Amino acid sequence: MLQKPALHTVLSPKLLSLYDISNSVVVIIDVFRATSTIATALYNGASRIIPVAEVQQCIEIGKKLGGITAGERDGKVIEGLSHGNSPAEYPRSFIQGKTLVLTTTNGTKLLHMALNNGASEIITGSFPNLSAVCDHLVASKKNVILGCSAWKDRFNLEDSLFAGAVIQRIQEHFTIHCDSSLMASELYLAQKDNMANFIRKTTHWHRLATYGLEKDLEYCVTPDQANILPIYRNGDLVAK
Amino acid sequence: MLQKPALHTVLSPKLLSLYDISNSVVVIIDVFRATSTIATALYNGASRIIPVAEVQQCIEIGKKLGGITAGERDGKVIEGLSHGNSPAEYPRSFIQGKTLVLTTTNGTKLLHMALNNGASEIITGSFPNLSAVCDHLVASKKNVILGCSAWKDRFNLEDSLFAGAVIQRIQEHFTIHCDSSLMASELYLAQKDNMANFIRKTTHWHRLATYGLEKDLEYCVTPDQANILPIYRNGDLVAK
Repeated sequence: MLQKPALHTVLSPKLLSLYDISNSVVVIIDVFRATSTIATALYNGASRIIPVAEVQQCIEIGKKLGGITAGERDGKVIEGLSHGNSPAEYPRSFIQGKTLVLTTTNGTKLLHMALNNGASEIITGSFPNLSAVCDHLVASKKNVILGCSAWKDRFNLEDSLFAGAVIQRIQEHFTIHCDSSLMASELYLAQKDNMANFIRKTTHWHRLATYGLEKDLEYCVTPDQANILPIYRNGDLVAK
Repeated sequence: MLQKPALHTVLSPKLLSLYDISNSVVVIIDVFRATSTIATALYNGASRIIPVAEVQQCIEIGKKLGGITAGERDGKVIEGLSHGNSPAEYPRSFIQGKTLVLTTTNGTKLLHMALNNGASEIITGSFPNLSAVCDHLVASKKNVILGCSAWKDRFNLEDSLFAGAVIQRIQEHFTIHCDSSLMASELYLAQKDNMANFIRKTTHWHRLATYGLEKDLEYCVTPDQANILPIYRNGDLVAK
């Protein structure tokens, strides 16, 4: 019998170096809100998304390519950029056929770390594209790293909940000897019918709800509203 | 109204630097089995426990002080030391009045990190001394860091379960804006009546049960069998 590929969950970018990711598909998870926005913009026809770490770089690439520049700090659009991090800002009528240059703190950092550590393939995951992620991971038959972007390297609940949702769906296809995965899976199982209430307890909810983003956050924990697979290729995230 | 002190849970030594611990009581948690053994040996009358990182240091201090040297790797007593990491090896008839020089991988590392990062006070926590830890934290009225020793820096379930048990008991006395704490608390709440089964799923169980240590592990998740408070003072862990 063939051995099943391994699946691990990484709870913070600071823990990524503990894992050999060289033969793995790495799923970048940043539920509130980067990877939810990435799925939504691609689902609505964005030609590509360029994730960048620095604001200045975002502005420069935006000018050079004529793309939409986007990024927030403390719930407000960053000075010099034109749009924010909300998935609601990227309907088909606006984003179709355009390039989105997106700067985010946590998700972009983890994506670049995965790239530098030699990930075999990088995709992004969020509840809006849950099924697309699960289908791809099962079909790939490769080792999987579920990479939680966390908040300034601190563990967060929402990224783990998504990891747990993935594990619940695909666990029979993988060998899982990983306490982080077991925790995420148990957490999701316990909370899946109570998500709207549970996420209101998270620190991130309290941080963002201050800015009136409740509708955004509820969208970000609803499965399959933008069911597409963002895959990283030569600097861009594109729909597979 | 006075503001309540803050409580945070740190899921791995690699994440400790994200927290300001300078005004905090740091609880070192290494459920399987270092801090369970520490509580048990002190409860049974050990005069002090000297936690050391290196085997050679353990041997030297043991010779110099005439103490019992203890440490395991892969479930076997380390060559050159006289005893292992099992709480069952330290009944009163053996350990009373003696010095125990203990080398462990994960717990000792975190303890020294907490010391170097300027913790206000360091104690050790485990299910055998759950109540003593909770009573002390409530009485101290200081900020608290629940520090999980993890396994080679990877998250583990059993240390989080203990953090959750502490939080469930003392949460009304603290301000808790910390997703790690919320996760630990929810995990414990969901599993507390199912502990004996749940811990059999952990990676650590599979690692240690191979060496026939099931009884040890069950003891290590049973509350208040050695209800004493180990506190770190000038290189020693002593009963408060």
